[in-house]
Amino acid sequence: MAAVTSLNALIEALGDGQPINKVLLSRSRHDAKIATIVRLCRERGIIFQFVPAEAVERKAGVKNQGVWAEIAPVRFFSLDAALADAQTGLVVILDNIEDTGNLGAMIRSAAAVKTDAILISVRNSAPVNETTWKTSAGTLGKVRLVQSRNLAMDVARLKKAGFWVVATDQQARMNFYDFDFKGKTAVIFGNESKGVSPLLKKNADQLLAIPHDRAVESLNVSAAAAIILFEAWRQKKG
Amino acid sequence: MAAVTSLNALIEALGDGQPINKVLLSRSRHDAKIATIVRLCRERGIIFQFVPAEAVERKAGVKNQGVWAEIAPVRFFSLDAALADAQTGLVVILDNIEDTGNLGAMIRSAAAVKTDAILISVRNSAPVNETTWKTSAGTLGKVRLVQSRNLAMDVARLKKAGFWVVATDQQARMNFYDFDFKGKTAVIFGNESKGVSPLLKKNADQLLAIPHDRAVESLNVSAAAAIILFEAWRQKKG
Repeated sequence: MAAVTSLNALIEALGDGQPINKVLLSRSRHDAKIATIVRLCRERGIIFQFVPAEAVERKAGVKNQGVWAEIAPVRFFSLDAALADAQTGLVVILDNIEDTGNLGAMIRSAAAVKTDAILISVRNSAPVNETTWKTSAGTLGKVRLVQSRNLAMDVARLKKAGFWVVATDQQARMNFYDFDFKGKTAVIFGNESKGVSPLLKKNADQLLAIPHDRAVESLNVSAAAAIILFEAWRQKKG
Repeated sequence: MAAVTSLNALIEALGDGQPINKVLLSRSRHDAKIATIVRLCRERGIIFQFVPAEAVERKAGVKNQGVWAEIAPVRFFSLDAALADAQTGLVVILDNIEDTGNLGAMIRSAAAVKTDAILISVRNSAPVNETTWKTSAGTLGKVRLVQSRNLAMDVARLKKAGFWVVATDQQARMNFYDFDFKGKTAVIFGNESKGVSPLLKKNADQLLAIPHDRAVESLNVSAAAAIILFEAWRQKKG
């Protein structure tokens, strides 16, 4: 994974629209260049964090300019840009998927059903990096990824844009195949052990269960995603 | 992974019905105990291999009795035993699944739809070990695993037992949801890069495609398994 550790190189990369995963800024520096970096990150929706000087040093080395950024293997989209030429009316929301293998597998399945956008929560999610590229079998470059700082807010925006928001939940009364996926739909998949977070479940328009034998406690989240996304694709195509 | 390296201990373990993954026997030894081990392995359908003495030495150490066996975290069934009290009429055949993560995920999905048996090809497959136990989320203990030395022969036996044998194939003309899974069905899933092997495809009664956007070359095999197995479960239940 390529990293940028110079102020000027980072300003240039940001200005050029280069894909950047994350920017770390030393708390002990305040100058015009840092301000420019913060402004450009805000404009492009790139995650930045002010951290102790030592945290930057650990990443960028002792002689550093108080900044470290990780180049992403893909570029990220804003939610608006991702939806601008939406085609399938299917959006995938990944709520704290921690395992890189699952993240890549879910991106691959989402790409295979031509998802308009994949929202990834910034906190506690597996990073989008070279490993994700591999686990997604290269499909990372074929989807529009949106880094979300606040999934609840983005869910509200999707609803406003006419999306029906559904979340997977084992206790749900409706089975996934009884849901009508033909309209604009955003599907939330949750963390491997905790599932979809309570606030998002509460905000969802509909909870959907995948019925299975009760001797098995739960499904793997990427298996659940494959099952639901291909049902959506089948309904949308048929 | 526990290993057995003494002749007597191995004979005892085999006699007790302990789950054993694989037995290596030195080619340079021939005696009554080795003959007993071979007989017990044959009876229980456990894989054994005669290998050069050095191969046993590498596993069991310099002072060895010409034998090395790996205790499995689960016990294996013969195909007949697995089908003896079959309930769902659904069998999963894993043809050279090389990735432990995929193997575990597919076992987990198969367990969730109460598969009667999971056949795993012995050659070139990921081993059934502690890692598989983890990637299967512990469901390894809830399914009947059958080690298959010859999938083509076992497919023939399944057909004789009244199973309709289907294989996934991207070029197939029939879509998976147009197939009737209500009868006794065995589904073959193939290697991550090579797919289902040509002979098994030829012997299958029906090839099934999972339609998807052509911009994406192929699906992950464990995603494909989840999609097809849950369609089977849905049809069988509904």
